[in-house]
Amino acid sequence: MQVNGVPYRTVWLEGCTVKMINQQLIPHRFEICTLANHLETAQAITTMLVRGAGAIGASAGYGMAQVVLEAPDNNGFMDLIQQGADTLRHTRPTAQDLFYAIDRVYNAALKANSVNQARLLAVEAAEAYADENAAAGEAIGRHGATLIPDGARVLTHCNAGWLAFVDWGSALAPIYMASRQGKKVSVWVDETRPRCQGASLTAWELNGEGIPHTIIVDNAAGYLMRRGEVDLVIVGADRIAMNGDVANKIGTYEKAICAAANNVPFYVAAPISTIDPRCASGEGIPIEERSADEVLYVVGRDDDGTLTRVRMAHEGAQARNPAFDVTPARYIKAIITQEGIHQPGNLPVACV
Amino acid sequence: MQVNGVPYRTVWLEGCTVKMINQQLIPHRFEICTLANHLETAQAITTMLVRGAGAIGASAGYGMAQVVLEAPDNNGFMDLIQQGADTLRHTRPTAQDLFYAIDRVYNAALKANSVNQARLLAVEAAEAYADENAAAGEAIGRHGATLIPDGARVLTHCNAGWLAFVDWGSALAPIYMASRQGKKVSVWVDETRPRCQGASLTAWELNGEGIPHTIIVDNAAGYLMRRGEVDLVIVGADRIAMNGDVANKIGTYEKAICAAANNVPFYVAAPISTIDPRCASGEGIPIEERSADEVLYVVGRDDDGTLTRVRMAHEGAQARNPAFDVTPARYIKAIITQEGIHQPGNLPVACV
Repeated sequence: MQVNGVPYRTVWLEGCTVKMINQQLIPHRFEICTLANHLETAQAITTMLVRGAGAIGASAGYGMAQVVLEAPDNNGFMDLIQQGADTLRHTRPTAQDLFYAIDRVYNAALKANSVNQARLLAVEAAEAYADENAAAGEAIGRHGATLIPDGARVLTHCNAGWLAFVDWGSALAPIYMASRQGKKVSVWVDETRPRCQGASLTAWELNGEGIPHTIIVDNAAGYLMRRGEVDLVIVGADRIAMNGDVANKIGTYEKAICAAANNVPFYVAAPISTIDPRCASGEGIPIEERSADEVLYVVGRDDDGTLTRVRMAHEGAQARNPAFDVTPARYIKAIITQEGIHQPGNLPVACV
Repeated sequence: MQVNGVPYRTVWLEGCTVKMINQQLIPHRFEICTLANHLETAQAITTMLVRGAGAIGASAGYGMAQVVLEAPDNNGFMDLIQQGADTLRHTRPTAQDLFYAIDRVYNAALKANSVNQARLLAVEAAEAYADENAAAGEAIGRHGATLIPDGARVLTHCNAGWLAFVDWGSALAPIYMASRQGKKVSVWVDETRPRCQGASLTAWELNGEGIPHTIIVDNAAGYLMRRGEVDLVIVGADRIAMNGDVANKIGTYEKAICAAANNVPFYVAAPISTIDPRCASGEGIPIEERSADEVLYVVGRDDDGTLTRVRMAHEGAQARNPAFDVTPARYIKAIITQEGIHQPGNLPVACV
């Protein structure tokens, strides 16, 4: 997708160097990090310069390719790529895509008959992961765009855009595709407290693609639906159970209930890897509770341009911070994957 | 209600001086403003050192008493109190209680046979307004407390507490009363974006009264209801239509829908003056749209203790900021006033 008129991916490989958009500075500054070796790439994943399952996966895959490129020809080549894989596996604890991408590049390298071939196959595998991730987003966009009428006013929650993937994204991909097809689309962007990914990331993405958008506080979504100013809702997903229940950013459930009460169609868009065949229903999805400070503070740019946090509550105040909620399948009109548009009760499963 | 163990009202008269809690500094600092004459009191109302219908009304009433106390015995006494009333009437445009309190004190002064008697009657009338406002809150508390079981976990939105009135408040009054009756009550406090009155004012009030409370982002209310962690919801109201539709802070509608979907009783508490006999239904209530900056920025205390605003979105981002929404009567289990507990379709009307 575009930034200041130039097409970008979130992360890519140039020779032996990984380059990635520094997502910690978005939307206030746009900077590309240059990561000269796999240790720098691992560090960038750990410190969350990159976030989002697909973008983390691609970064780890490229980092693994760096490991294979860096290891000396003769001196313990196999030990070093084993060691590099371990380093990368310890960067983030829960992102499934991270382990998948590392293994894919590692296993490709193992199949080689020579060190030179290992390097070639590792880079190919890392590029293949990134390309497939981008292609999945584009396919989600193509399927999802059929659900977006010309002139539609779409509401979205949190950031399930291209920054979270290699390109395109999930919830935002149908909007990008509809816009490229020449449809007029505008977007209501929930700010998405506590971390404000809507206000900071989604709005910035849409701005780069020139798609009209308006930020609202999360409280205003129901009001706009009731006034008939929302034609459909599309959100992403963190995990989808086999019965179609969807875990996603906190507040998704409230938007789904409001949509149902106002007959606004509510869609979930996600790659097939988000569907968990071991999870029968939303009851089985554990909900992470995060630091109270995310609720008690807001981080942003102050009037001097410095990133600053401010606190709204009194000293000593308590807060609770569930990071996700589960939306029951009955509120979801359809789930959009790269394979098509599915009824929540009839989902495809990824071949593992 | 109590602050650091000392009982306070939001505003009171000491001799010829009006004293009020500076609400712009809550929860970060607790300061009492001393307003030596009616011009200083008018200024305090204009610059919103005081906010909330009842608290504004009492401040204006006391300001009008200052006018009568200040006017010289002989030299144009009547002209000066007329002029002072005009000054106070121009402090805030829409608060009905402001005009009511000024007129009440003004008319009391007019009935006097002497300047000395006018001063006495003006002060009496200003005190009567404040006492009645506090008594209405206490009565709302008494009626509402019957709806709060021992051990209840109550969710509230925005600030309809004692800071918005002279004492007690509306939505929080039943909680204060239940707590004084010895019931164990805990409160989920919606932070209430964009202005965060929940996080900054409601949490601070509850802290002063020693009532256990936990701040949540507005997005988390539905999640907690679905998990069975909310026993009832009580909110205030800005205006109530005769059919029981309620205009209140943006987001109230979403909470009401979530409560209905989870069989959580949803109550509205407000003084009878909030019920508008000229308004047949919520369709007739105009919704104020406020500055986009309230959405694009958050104001709070930075780590140095300075009140600072931070911006989450990119430069040039657009936002929309409806300040209120309308909750249809069908979502409201009962409306609590100082006269009792009413069905939304069967409301009392104030004698004007």
